[in-house]
Amino acid sequence: MKEELNRLHKQLEFIHEIDKLKYILRKTKLFNSDRPENDVEHSWHLAMIAMVLSEHVNHPVDLLKVMKMLLIHDVVEIDAGDVFFFDKTQSHDNRPEEYAAAKRIFGLLPQDQAQELESLWIEFEECKTNDAKFAKAIDCLEPMLQNRSNKGGTWMEYDVSYQDVLDSKLIMKEISTPLWEYTKELLQKSVDEGILRK
Amino acid sequence: MKEELNRLHKQLEFIHEIDKLKYILRKTKLFNSDRPENDVEHSWHLAMIAMVLSEHVNHPVDLLKVMKMLLIHDVVEIDAGDVFFFDKTQSHDNRPEEYAAAKRIFGLLPQDQAQELESLWIEFEECKTNDAKFAKAIDCLEPMLQNRSNKGGTWMEYDVSYQDVLDSKLIMKEISTPLWEYTKELLQKSVDEGILRK
Repeated sequence: MKEELNRLHKQLEFIHEIDKLKYILRKTKLFNSDRPENDVEHSWHLAMIAMVLSEHVNHPVDLLKVMKMLLIHDVVEIDAGDVFFFDKTQSHDNRPEEYAAAKRIFGLLPQDQAQELESLWIEFEECKTNDAKFAKAIDCLEPMLQNRSNKGGTWMEYDVSYQDVLDSKLIMKEISTPLWEYTKELLQKSVDEGILRK
Repeated sequence: MKEELNRLHKQLEFIHEIDKLKYILRKTKLFNSDRPENDVEHSWHLAMIAMVLSEHVNHPVDLLKVMKMLLIHDVVEIDAGDVFFFDKTQSHDNRPEEYAAAKRIFGLLPQDQAQELESLWIEFEECKTNDAKFAKAIDCLEPMLQNRSNKGGTWMEYDVSYQDVLDSKLIMKEISTPLWEYTKELLQKSVDEGILRK
């Protein structure tokens, strides 16, 4: 029991720490709203999306693993902050502060769990496996749906072009034919309605 | 492809609808904060807690199922609202408006998925299986941790007694010996520090 309680105390420290993710705001807004979404709301929504859309993948995925990835994928932003996808002044790949954050935050857990979550986070970032590709596709889908429901949202606010948005969604093409068909249709409609510039 | 896109459109309608859960506020506050937690933040945190604490259960559980339950368990509150646990003026069991909400909201999905999520939600509510009991125990744990970090939080605000809180946590005893040991210790410390009345 002593060892179990020792592990439990470390796990509870992690549970307490990740509360801070509720304060990290994204650029995208809630559906039909001006209120920015926070990282926790975003992560919950992605896990829900994975849960209901997993039937559409072209190759089988491990849903539990995908959901874990999506729930934890932004935890590093507690230390490293959110970088807007279309902000070209900042690097998006393998930022050292994100790796340091993963070490510190997942490192609050017992070692075996710290390693598991850090590996899952790296797998998501590297985006080479089918599980990670599906997770990334879901991460691309939500802001597109939000911008569509918010009259262009961050596309209009940051003057992002149709081609830039389409290029950022190419992962969909690889992972899911129906999601890719839907994406092309949604972006074309957005151009037709004047909420995304060609 | 037509049938797949037909299913996808229904699923996306559900994904859009559940955004409303981000506006449903709970009585409990974030850790070390005066800001109320919303249902989505609560649900994300519970799924994260299940992920890191599942080793402590007395009987094996299906973690994917538990995480699904926790992510969806409050979706009905979009229509039915949040009822504070210690509010004794309102019924907490099988409220008809919650069942109607489950029918309406999960019913946006294709029929097979609507049935799956409605069944999961009912299993959670009935709390008879090990999966549901573990999920309920996690649902009991988070507000206790929040109140402890918020100098008594809703215990103080609503003048809840040690015995009432302890009684509300009995599910822990059944599902996890380490969590029950920790719960008793935390509540006793809270009494000793004057943030929970005996």
